[in-house]
Amino acid sequence: MADAERSPIAIICGGGSFPGAVAEAIVRGGRKPVMFGLKGWADAKIVERYTHHWIAIGETGRFFRLARQEQCEDLLLIGWLLRPPLTQLRLDWQTIRLLPRLARAFRGGDDRLLSGIAQIAEEQGLRIIGLHDVAPEVFVPEGMLGHHQPSATDRNDIARGMKLIAALGPFDVGQAAVVANNHVLAVEAAEGTDNMLARIADLRRQGRVTTPPGIGVLVKAPKPGQDRRFDLPSIGPRTIEGAARAGLAGVAVAAGSTIVADAAEVIAIAEREKIFVAGVAEDTAR
Amino acid sequence: MADAERSPIAIICGGGSFPGAVAEAIVRGGRKPVMFGLKGWADAKIVERYTHHWIAIGETGRFFRLARQEQCEDLLLIGWLLRPPLTQLRLDWQTIRLLPRLARAFRGGDDRLLSGIAQIAEEQGLRIIGLHDVAPEVFVPEGMLGHHQPSATDRNDIARGMKLIAALGPFDVGQAAVVANNHVLAVEAAEGTDNMLARIADLRRQGRVTTPPGIGVLVKAPKPGQDRRFDLPSIGPRTIEGAARAGLAGVAVAAGSTIVADAAEVIAIAEREKIFVAGVAEDTAR
Repeated sequence: MADAERSPIAIICGGGSFPGAVAEAIVRGGRKPVMFGLKGWADAKIVERYTHHWIAIGETGRFFRLARQEQCEDLLLIGWLLRPPLTQLRLDWQTIRLLPRLARAFRGGDDRLLSGIAQIAEEQGLRIIGLHDVAPEVFVPEGMLGHHQPSATDRNDIARGMKLIAALGPFDVGQAAVVANNHVLAVEAAEGTDNMLARIADLRRQGRVTTPPGIGVLVKAPKPGQDRRFDLPSIGPRTIEGAARAGLAGVAVAAGSTIVADAAEVIAIAEREKIFVAGVAEDTAR
Repeated sequence: MADAERSPIAIICGGGSFPGAVAEAIVRGGRKPVMFGLKGWADAKIVERYTHHWIAIGETGRFFRLARQEQCEDLLLIGWLLRPPLTQLRLDWQTIRLLPRLARAFRGGDDRLLSGIAQIAEEQGLRIIGLHDVAPEVFVPEGMLGHHQPSATDRNDIARGMKLIAALGPFDVGQAAVVANNHVLAVEAAEGTDNMLARIADLRRQGRVTTPPGIGVLVKAPKPGQDRRFDLPSIGPRTIEGAARAGLAGVAVAAGSTIVADAAEVIAIAEREKIFVAGVAEDTAR
């Protein structure tokens, strides 16, 4: 693996614009991305801008063969891999042989699923790397994105949300919660952040959330002990729009371990909606 | 308070049929219920079956005066009091004087809100009693309601859900969660159990819950340290219907501290939908 530092990086790409931002950062860093677009999900305009292959979910053997042909030694998984649409599922023989292991890994929750996948990849000669290694600029830095600031109430809500996420660590659930005026309004599990924020907006319309608009914070942070090579929390323009529609004061995330997709757009929306977006040092928040 | 044991019991009644079940149990126990129906919410057919008064939310002074006239020394609050519709809100002078205290109590989450209310009631000569004191038969007993039984997977999911609810104790949130095949699919906060179950059904339709139907358990239990005189978890016919629509295997609740509204109907629906309803001893589950 002497040349691993310079070898091409295999990227398995799900939907959205984020894989493009990562590939760009990798090119800027002087390495070559090889895009493996998931059929029926990844965006062709992004995938086909780089050396690429299209694979179906379940084509494990084909993926490892292609990655070897491309001389990749490093593999980057991007978070939203975890809940792919299964309409295009195809199982090749290697996947079928791996099914019992995958099924066992799956039973343990996301964390165990991911370490199971990492182990399988390593047996095939692919080292799973993290975004920190190749694209550190995709993380939210400490401080404010934009110029709105959290109030004292917001800071208390942020601390409570961070503690809640920490307490949920052992259950492999939830990287996000909404806290308003010291009340926990929502805890994220399988529904995802966008759905959770839409729920707050609905409950508010129904009069079941009684804190006035402009109070309350969406808090996101990685689970304690989470393998940070994959499945990191992320925010993007939709997150900010959802927080605004939910009547929140702002969004606070763990600095350095939360991904921001399209930071310029995130800031533009936050400024327009007058909400803060804060990167919070994890130790001080907990 | 020598006659407290025999004095009439004031019951503040929200919506649904549950206040009727409690009043019946009190009559069977040889005491007299005095129903205080909340305008625009409580069911007249139930409230007017007993000695009763109609009050608006916010008429604190009027309520205490009427309760004194009726010689009530004990007050029973029924859980769903907490999120009343505010269309009929009226504030009398005593309520306005109490507002700063109520606002402070409200900021602390449900637990503190309730102890705040208890303290105010006690200053007015009303002792808040719990359902355990006057209607123990409204609680789910240990064992199965109906004859469906949880599988080994279900038992593991039950234990995980109970541990999760215990871990959330310090945050004054969530008496319920859905766990399927060891994955936490949902954690309840402000949305309530019915909404949480509807969410699982939606996520399943969208293909975002991939555990097959017939796996997964709704788990409900009081938060650790919760004052059990009010706001206990409850299940009723709608809970069982919601669990069935969410494709769950069953419902498991903390025995002896979870209320069942309309047990006969609960059992009938569970039998029809082939799902289990288990009362679980809290110490063995945790």
